Amino acid sequence: MITFKEAFQKVLAHPLDLGIEVVSLMDSLNRILAEDIYADRDFPPFNRATKDGIAIQYSTLVNNGHLFTIEGEAAAGVVQQVLTDKNNCLEVMTGAVVPENCDTVVMYENITIENGKVSLNENVVKGQNIHYQGSDEKADALLLSKGKKISPAEIGVMATVGKAKVKVMGNPKVCTIATGNELVDVDETPEPHQIRKSNMLTIEAALLNSKIDASSLHLLDDKKEIERELEKALQDNDVLLLSGGVSKGKFDFIPDVMASLGVQKVFHRVLQRPGKPFWFGFHPKLKTVIFSFPGNPVSTFANYHLYFLPWLQTSWGLPIDNSYIKLSTAITITQPLTRFFQVSTEVKGGIFWATLVVENGSGDLTSLAKADGFICLEPRDEDYEVGEVVRFVKTR
Amino acid sequence: MITFKEAFQKVLAHPLDLGIEVVSLMDSLNRILAEDIYADRDFPPFNRATKDGIAIQYSTLVNNGHLFTIEGEAAAGVVQQVLTDKNNCLEVMTGAVVPENCDTVVMYENITIENGKVSLNENVVKGQNIHYQGSDEKADALLLSKGKKISPAEIGVMATVGKAKVKVMGNPKVCTIATGNELVDVDETPEPHQIRKSNMLTIEAALLNSKIDASSLHLLDDKKEIERELEKALQDNDVLLLSGGVSKGKFDFIPDVMASLGVQKVFHRVLQRPGKPFWFGFHPKLKTVIFSFPGNPVSTFANYHLYFLPWLQTSWGLPIDNSYIKLSTAITITQPLTRFFQVSTEVKGGIFWATLVVENGSGDLTSLAKADGFICLEPRDEDYEVGEVVRFVKTR
Repeated sequence: MITFKEAFQKVLAHPLDLGIEVVSLMDSLNRILAEDIYADRDFPPFNRATKDGIAIQYSTLVNNGHLFTIEGEAAAGVVQQVLTDKNNCLEVMTGAVVPENCDTVVMYENITIENGKVSLNENVVKGQNIHYQGSDEKADALLLSKGKKISPAEIGVMATVGKAKVKVMGNPKVCTIATGNELVDVDETPEPHQIRKSNMLTIEAALLNSKIDASSLHLLDDKKEIERELEKALQDNDVLLLSGGVSKGKFDFIPDVMASLGVQKVFHRVLQRPGKPFWFGFHPKLKTVIFSFPGNPVSTFANYHLYFLPWLQTSWGLPIDNSYIKLSTAITITQPLTRFFQVSTEVKGGIFWATLVVENGSGDLTSLAKADGFICLEPRDEDYEVGEVVRFVKTR
Repeated sequence: MITFKEAFQKVLAHPLDLGIEVVSLMDSLNRILAEDIYADRDFPPFNRATKDGIAIQYSTLVNNGHLFTIEGEAAAGVVQQVLTDKNNCLEVMTGAVVPENCDTVVMYENITIENGKVSLNENVVKGQNIHYQGSDEKADALLLSKGKKISPAEIGVMATVGKAKVKVMGNPKVCTIATGNELVDVDETPEPHQIRKSNMLTIEAALLNSKIDASSLHLLDDKKEIERELEKALQDNDVLLLSGGVSKGKFDFIPDVMASLGVQKVFHRVLQRPGKPFWFGFHPKLKTVIFSFPGNPVSTFANYHLYFLPWLQTSWGLPIDNSYIKLSTAITITQPLTRFFQVSTEVKGGIFWATLVVENGSGDLTSLAKADGFICLEPRDEDYEVGEVVRFVKTR
């Protein structure tokens, strides 16, 4: 059996080229940017009034108590206006181009208008209330880098520079595969010896959070059917995510069938808990990668986050996110297993704390709903202490 | 002008009854649960074998070196089998019901099978490798409470108990409204005095992250058109989110038009930066709530997170999430404005740190893409110190 570290490295050593997809701006939300985004012009693109009021030439203020005649107005969305007499002023609206021959904006709150003449009530600073052309970004400046996750803020930036279509990292075509005669559909009432399919629905939901809309299969314990279905699934998909079917049971045909279909086993079983009977393989010809998770809900959920998501990041050419958290309980980890514990998290006094979730082994599905993620503890002789910082894998 | 705290309380004092929606299990992902979820039976529903191997009666082990004859097998997904002779064993698969008259499971790795007789290679503990009926949850136990955000883990729990349809908190019907003649569409090339619409696309993307699919409008600076469009929008929606149009400019008709259409202004302008010219109102007859944000991108984005999202939580009857973070820089906040600064965040040594994003005022859209959220600082005489814990509002 190999260690968690070795297994992890072997999984990352089998990335796929997932290509690039072009999607509409809104569809790029929560995808990964696959191009650099540059400013198409200066930002702001002109000297922009940031207040409603009047635009003046500051030099006129040498005459204390100067009264400005309103020459006209500069609205937002119209071409730049011109102040013809520098002793006058133009009314100006937020978002408008500051008029030619003007260098200062005074807001309505600080002026008095009487008989078409404007007097100032407050001291004025030269250049005030103007958002200067190019002061945020110059034309051709790099605004967003390839590899960034697209959040609403990035949508705004790309809208500003006219990216109606966006290049994003391609998603793998994924099929989730549940195995076992004991499984029935969610809307069915199970017999006493049956349970509802839940494991792969959990994974499908997790995939949806990565914007991957997976297909799904349910394989019964019948070697011929498994052979037929897997052969097609290997051809049609980039990734198969299986749950159950690779332990040592009489009906666990899957490793044999995989081999007969040309899949190369990379490893089976890892020195870890939960998730020990994890099987990983790939099909060198079809370029299909197979993650076969143990059938227990906590094991499947853990291994999805521990292996599949980092594999996806690597396939996209991105670094793996490593998070860390402080332990609120001391924990002893004996050799030889790497242990993953479900924890709930809390920020208290600016410190990010992990508290163990009470669970009843890897079959305890309900414990998942109490947890925010897993802490990852390598085996070692000394105890893990309260306040120690350990690796954390987020699951919600 | 009112303080931020007062404005916040006034917004929360106008919640809407958003009702309850029934959606399919997968569509409930990332929505808010509007019902309690109970175990429909014990979990696990039967004494479940957790390993592939043999099921035995432990008492037979008083005879050291006892050889077990294999009577048959208990597969997953079949009714409970019966061990007829307690000196024999049944092969048993992971997920199967532990057979009647058996109380212990020994995995294949720890047994030797020769001529149909099984000998044990390792010490056996009575009751091992069985996940006992009801040990995770008893039938009728409360598994998930109303008000919980539905993540993949909750999808799994609900699948297990057969919730093919789920009650979730209703979403408001939202219309986002951009105002101003200077705005052109994302796929257009703006004239020098024009800019592309980005502000409301940012908000629409943020709404999508709350699973709210908003409609959108663009109002030009024309009073008649604004009147006609707003009247319809007030009737068709629960919430209007506007950007721009409520400062003191000549073309900011919106407050007047709102009043003429029966909207009651709750407040206009708040002692805060960014986001000072925020206007909030509601239509008592139509039950429409109106958030009119300033036109600057940072202001709009800040106020969406500071006011709209807490309003939504309150309308759903949920507490407001308050997060806190440590400051990595000292900051001075003078009276009278509450200040919101964009920060990037990092967990280092288990501590959650906020670092100020360099920005160029509230018009600096590109700064949003550098930030993970806003810190919220009330004005006070003493400086905010490095390491001080302050309120944090997450925006990605």
